[in-house]
Amino acid sequence: MKIVMIGAGNVATNIAKTLAKIGETPAQIWSRTLASAEALAETVDSCATSDWNSVMKDADVYIVSVKDDAMLDVIEQLCSRCKHGVFVHTAGTMSMSLFTGKAEHYGVLYPMQTFSKQKEVNFRTIPCFVEASDQQTLDIIMELARLLSDNVRELKEADRKWLHIAAVFSCNFANVCNTMAAKILERHGLDFNVMLPLLDETVAKLHRLHPKEAQTGPASRGDVGVVGKHLALLEGDKELSEVYSVLSDYILKNRV
Amino acid sequence: MKIVMIGAGNVATNIAKTLAKIGETPAQIWSRTLASAEALAETVDSCATSDWNSVMKDADVYIVSVKDDAMLDVIEQLCSRCKHGVFVHTAGTMSMSLFTGKAEHYGVLYPMQTFSKQKEVNFRTIPCFVEASDQQTLDIIMELARLLSDNVRELKEADRKWLHIAAVFSCNFANVCNTMAAKILERHGLDFNVMLPLLDETVAKLHRLHPKEAQTGPASRGDVGVVGKHLALLEGDKELSEVYSVLSDYILKNRV
Repeated sequence: MKIVMIGAGNVATNIAKTLAKIGETPAQIWSRTLASAEALAETVDSCATSDWNSVMKDADVYIVSVKDDAMLDVIEQLCSRCKHGVFVHTAGTMSMSLFTGKAEHYGVLYPMQTFSKQKEVNFRTIPCFVEASDQQTLDIIMELARLLSDNVRELKEADRKWLHIAAVFSCNFANVCNTMAAKILERHGLDFNVMLPLLDETVAKLHRLHPKEAQTGPASRGDVGVVGKHLALLEGDKELSEVYSVLSDYILKNRV
Repeated sequence: MKIVMIGAGNVATNIAKTLAKIGETPAQIWSRTLASAEALAETVDSCATSDWNSVMKDADVYIVSVKDDAMLDVIEQLCSRCKHGVFVHTAGTMSMSLFTGKAEHYGVLYPMQTFSKQKEVNFRTIPCFVEASDQQTLDIIMELARLLSDNVRELKEADRKWLHIAAVFSCNFANVCNTMAAKILERHGLDFNVMLPLLDETVAKLHRLHPKEAQTGPASRGDVGVVGKHLALLEGDKELSEVYSVLSDYILKNRV
């Protein structure tokens, strides 16, 4: 498969490295900044460009992995020059219809994971969700996705939206609860690292139990006495006490 | 050290097993239900009782690991019969003063972890927080704690309260965010397991980054457009949209 990568950020880097490992190195990497394209191209032994006119026109697949707010402009630039092949973006929140009227065969390959350039992830375990403009294109994007991951399925945009909201709860909101914990600990001379064994175990439990069954703590025991004491202690911090109150109410009302 | 365990629940089981492994098997295990005491005693090759009058009177340390709401009654029963030795409870939320007037030497050994009987944890990595009625007792509880863990420190009740609140944010609140994610996914025919690689990576990042630096998602990018779209989608669920709104506001206002 002749692949051109559009983008050299966190997602593009992880995709390119994974493809290179199985001998499917992208033929070319485009990035707005040549230095970024070159850095990634060097790592995977590919070619770099930042010039739209130099992007190869005979690729089988163009994988567009750029920031959401650059996506529309990048797709316009790309599709005004390259007409053949399959065009796929990797953004969980963006519609496949970004390509409509600009390309003939297109779709989405959304790898649901939080990526960083520095930390390589095991792509084979990452759930990848695929959508396509037509059956033939779906087959090609599925083939590409299976090069990357053992966990591939089709998912229409209407459901991918909900998947993305769920990921916001599981990842972003869970993480901000840790930010609040860090704030509390640091105020009292304790380092956030002290929480790490508890965090590890909390997630390890979710590999065996549904989160409802894994729930612990005062609210899940219905211990409104402790909940009240905590709220009294947090009284001086309006933001933290609001979060404490809303989440404890939810746990109290939805107890198993 | 001659140790008597009062309790045979999740915490007591993990403590007894850890002590047994290093040749410090508790001399006796008391539980309200004889069957529970016997089950644990058999596992670690110790003696079981459910009779207060049979509890050994010559132990060096009595470790009280029972549910918070049983704690006061258990301490009264225990201390009315056994006078010598050091008395320690393992509850993060309970005051050391539960022992005041009932025992001479007492304290707290709080292992900050979420325990279950079925799943053995590596106690050596668990942060243990110790408090004692006097210096001599502190030395003894410290010695006991160091048999269990490599991560032991003194912490007064006033600060332990905050540690416990922080643990509620990090563990209980992060977990309930996953319950909400599961609810959303299951409504759309997706299994919660699809989130596991994302959860693993989210926590793995916290081993290297402060949670503030690890924050991702629409609110942390200041992308109020996506936040608004998500809130519109969640409109039909008052509870979920309230949580989404409160937590996104917090992230938006506390961006790095």
